[in-house]
Amino acid sequence: MSGKIYESRHLVKYYECDTNKKMTLPMLVNIMIHTSGEQSHLLGVGDDFVNEMGLSWVILQYEMKFNRVPEFAEEITITTQALSYNKLFCYREFKVYDSNGEECVTAKTTFALIDMVNRKMARIPEEIIMPYEAEFNKKLVRTPKPEKVDEKVTSTEYRVRFLDIDRNQHVNNSKYFDWALDALEYDFLTSHELNYVNIKFEKEVHYGNMITSSVSMTELEDGKVLTAHKITTGETVNCELSIMWK
Amino acid sequence: MSGKIYESRHLVKYYECDTNKKMTLPMLVNIMIHTSGEQSHLLGVGDDFVNEMGLSWVILQYEMKFNRVPEFAEEITITTQALSYNKLFCYREFKVYDSNGEECVTAKTTFALIDMVNRKMARIPEEIIMPYEAEFNKKLVRTPKPEKVDEKVTSTEYRVRFLDIDRNQHVNNSKYFDWALDALEYDFLTSHELNYVNIKFEKEVHYGNMITSSVSMTELEDGKVLTAHKITTGETVNCELSIMWK
Repeated sequence: MSGKIYESRHLVKYYECDTNKKMTLPMLVNIMIHTSGEQSHLLGVGDDFVNEMGLSWVILQYEMKFNRVPEFAEEITITTQALSYNKLFCYREFKVYDSNGEECVTAKTTFALIDMVNRKMARIPEEIIMPYEAEFNKKLVRTPKPEKVDEKVTSTEYRVRFLDIDRNQHVNNSKYFDWALDALEYDFLTSHELNYVNIKFEKEVHYGNMITSSVSMTELEDGKVLTAHKITTGETVNCELSIMWK
Repeated sequence: MSGKIYESRHLVKYYECDTNKKMTLPMLVNIMIHTSGEQSHLLGVGDDFVNEMGLSWVILQYEMKFNRVPEFAEEITITTQALSYNKLFCYREFKVYDSNGEECVTAKTTFALIDMVNRKMARIPEEIIMPYEAEFNKKLVRTPKPEKVDEKVTSTEYRVRFLDIDRNQHVNNSKYFDWALDALEYDFLTSHELNYVNIKFEKEVHYGNMITSSVSMTELEDGKVLTAHKITTGETVNCELSIMWK
């Protein structure tokens, strides 16, 4: 495992938390991505540099393990490291620690570059990837797929709003978590805590699209609950995710 | 004008910005309120202290003037000061400066305390207000009302989501801006900038409520555009706001 490690601190703010005073999943992901953005900027390969080459980073998958969710007013430390890359993918790890140095969250992510004009995946140029000092390994990393939703599905509809769109003109990754979580019941969300999240982005969603957030739930023998989610527009699957709750 | 001034710095992050790379109104308001929360905490009268007395601060009105909207990657400074108070209201000012010390935004706000059980307004106790060193003035400050929506109204419906709720079990103030702005067209929002915002909160909105966001638009002689907004649940007006755009 190689790659420069970058570290950033963050105070968990009131508006970043849900009704349980726990940091929300969208905000946690936002802060993680902000941290890797800072690293890229400091290494001279920030968004502007990448955009000038006609390219843009997109995230294809997050796999997150939770010891516990950070809470309101905590000072957390986020570390990030590009572990390895191949022709098309870059694998990056994030860790979130509390002020005692205890690990709260680990996230393994898969990044790719897209051509900003045709929105297709592009080969990763050396000049973009070199500064991270990640290891080149031509073998693809096998990542587990999110669980599939079963027949007993609850579905809720959402329309993509103006403030869901970021400057890449597509829906910010963090918004998918909002749609997925909101399809669950209030009582469930206030009585369960995140244990494991696996999300895979398939196709971009755009402004004005009507999306359907579907969810099915399975109670497991060890008392944990598995929810499987699907974000779709018509027949198209835009995103699949599964969450283990404790 | 009295009252201790508190100052805080903030880096404008990617996920706090819209597709124009400008800081969103919800995020600007979140950061302002975070800053006053920090001041209260440092003065020993933070949310926990107030909550232990069975009370909670609510915001009744924001009146905001914009020279310009802060942009992605800017380091801004937020100052806040409790200017004066009376039996029921506290008047607080916020200012946002850029790194050159230029004033970007000024906001005048009206705070009140509510009893957390009956959700009614409560008299402001001396021990909560004294540390701010604001001036007592028994006269109410007259604040301008938002413009009323006229007959030519466009309406959009929204359902209050789980992540719209904060730990006070009501909808976070910043979410009203999301509903109000989203009722405007994409092309309008990407071609106009905020000049003046006046928002008045009337009645709380709760989880699961279906809200209607209505808007009417008036083009003014000086080239500016006035939009008048109303957030309603059934016959109840929850919030009125008007925005001047340039």
